[in-house]
Amino acid sequence: MLNSQGWKLDNSFRDIFMRTVEWDYDLAGLKLIDQRLLPGEFKVNLYQDYHQVVGAIREMVVRGAPAIGVTAAFGLALAACQSSARTPKGFIDDLQVAAEDLRQSRPTAKNLTWALDQILQGLKAGDQDVGKMRIDILTRAQEMADDDVLLNRRMARLGATLIDDGDTIIHHCNTGALAAVDWGTALGVIRLAFEQGKRIHILVDETRPRMQGSRLTAWELKQIGIPYDIITDNAAGYFLSTGQVHKVFFGADRVAANGDVANKIGSYMLALAAHDNRVPVYAVVPTSTVDLSLVHGGLIPIEERNPDEVLSLELDGQPVAPAGSTARNPAFDVTPNRLLTAIVTEKGIVYPPFEQNLARIVTGN
Amino acid sequence: MLNSQGWKLDNSFRDIFMRTVEWDYDLAGLKLIDQRLLPGEFKVNLYQDYHQVVGAIREMVVRGAPAIGVTAAFGLALAACQSSARTPKGFIDDLQVAAEDLRQSRPTAKNLTWALDQILQGLKAGDQDVGKMRIDILTRAQEMADDDVLLNRRMARLGATLIDDGDTIIHHCNTGALAAVDWGTALGVIRLAFEQGKRIHILVDETRPRMQGSRLTAWELKQIGIPYDIITDNAAGYFLSTGQVHKVFFGADRVAANGDVANKIGSYMLALAAHDNRVPVYAVVPTSTVDLSLVHGGLIPIEERNPDEVLSLELDGQPVAPAGSTARNPAFDVTPNRLLTAIVTEKGIVYPPFEQNLARIVTGN
Repeated sequence: MLNSQGWKLDNSFRDIFMRTVEWDYDLAGLKLIDQRLLPGEFKVNLYQDYHQVVGAIREMVVRGAPAIGVTAAFGLALAACQSSARTPKGFIDDLQVAAEDLRQSRPTAKNLTWALDQILQGLKAGDQDVGKMRIDILTRAQEMADDDVLLNRRMARLGATLIDDGDTIIHHCNTGALAAVDWGTALGVIRLAFEQGKRIHILVDETRPRMQGSRLTAWELKQIGIPYDIITDNAAGYFLSTGQVHKVFFGADRVAANGDVANKIGSYMLALAAHDNRVPVYAVVPTSTVDLSLVHGGLIPIEERNPDEVLSLELDGQPVAPAGSTARNPAFDVTPNRLLTAIVTEKGIVYPPFEQNLARIVTGN
Repeated sequence: MLNSQGWKLDNSFRDIFMRTVEWDYDLAGLKLIDQRLLPGEFKVNLYQDYHQVVGAIREMVVRGAPAIGVTAAFGLALAACQSSARTPKGFIDDLQVAAEDLRQSRPTAKNLTWALDQILQGLKAGDQDVGKMRIDILTRAQEMADDDVLLNRRMARLGATLIDDGDTIIHHCNTGALAAVDWGTALGVIRLAFEQGKRIHILVDETRPRMQGSRLTAWELKQIGIPYDIITDNAAGYFLSTGQVHKVFFGADRVAANGDVANKIGSYMLALAAHDNRVPVYAVVPTSTVDLSLVHGGLIPIEERNPDEVLSLELDGQPVAPAGSTARNPAFDVTPNRLLTAIVTEKGIVYPPFEQNLARIVTGN
């Protein structure tokens, strides 16, 4: 059923039985749904070289904080397969180089660093041979993938209690199965609420510049059957201020110790508009996204991406920007904790004061 | 030099010596720069039937509150030429029908209604003949066009005092020469500040869905030589919250008596983000945009436009939204007066409390 060369999609996403990020044990490689081609084409790419995985993350073949964390872990597993080192020391040196490459591919995502650190810290040069370490790394990456799906299910169960029958919800970017290994974070919450029989309607922020909302979230909602309308990011304020929205949901790429969240560009303005109209705002994130080492969101590094993502847009068949124009393209912004109603994690729903409550839930104390 | 069939633009806008909206006395028709084709193509359309003018306003051949006000006035002049009525009564009846068609073309713009009312109220069925009324209407429309340019110059002189050397300014939508008869409102202010020698940099909100920022404002800035970067509307909050912006400027399509302003969708979220970071927000509007009959902005009718403006977008050569998706497309939102630092009019800069100060400046008392 799976074709690594890709095929045109004409059935439901749920019928594919494929994860967004999946290790192929027969082909000894990593398979990624090529999200750049959706919704027009459903294509799966196979990667057998970790350098290609670095490129795939950077080029956004795969995106979404949880998905790129697991992708990086499998990328490290590929690097382990590729290393010709015979000593544990040489092997670990090779992995450190690969991990640094992977880490640089998307600087804002906490999960990516978290996943790499988890694996590297598990290696002990003294007491293992290289062959065993290779297997350990792949096993650990696979565990992370499986854990991610479980985490998402758990967040969905908790988060769905926040959604009421009849809710209209604004959702920013894509946080669905495509953003994770499977199921999703914020969109996973929405999906479960829908499957519980709650009648909900989603206003899908299109999410310039990469349009993950109209391209990916609308596509996932369509597969599942959840009613939606696409809106420009600009329009969220209108719907919020005219009383047409009950809740706002999004994910996050990194959460600071005080509950400030870095998420897809535009999240901050959306949260401001919701807050200005007393509409609750929920960020749905696994605790691996929380970076207790950062006191506040101003310390989160914000990736500035290629200006072509802004400039290379066509409207009515013609480029929109005058030739020779320049652009600036920050990929994320920081939503201050004061604008968030709660942060939904797999370990519980965290309410203010976030500083105390986040630390408690993340460390388990 | 002017070709009503259109030609490719390869020289500066200022060299064209043409207004965005211009009556051609030789051809007895209205000429409009076709703004749907910019920045790729510079084409001028000739209209000799007022029904076509209704379509041109609706289809956004011409847009921008001041420009469509004057366009409607000239549209009424065309209707006057077209009317075959021989009695003043029959003539005025014909004009009432045409005015109603023109009024419906863009329901939010105050200038449009204002311009039509000005002309209709000037007609006195008892004491004129039809031929004289025709000339009066065209004369009045031409006066409005000329007045608009003068008004804009006056607003620019007042508003430019608000801009400091070294300012980085976010500008939303298009409020330049293309949005007016000539020169522009908010962008006119920016232009004059630049011509006064102030070193400024503009962050151009691309302004989804019609992209008037990247298509039109960037094009005008390029012609004038003002440095700019295009940003997605989503990115404004990032630049504001990281201290990279000194002022926000936009225009307005209708201002309520209390200073609430209806402007291009997204203005509200932009103003919120500026306010949240103590960055001043200025709306630049002629007093004809102020509607003292509306107590607050919630009473301003908001046009919801064709969803195809949201859905018909291509990214990397493919449609972004899944086939069969629906969209909602409000064209304007209301920025509450509390978010505005001042409203710049041709009669002076109005500061809070807007309720008293706007009425005073508009009525001249």
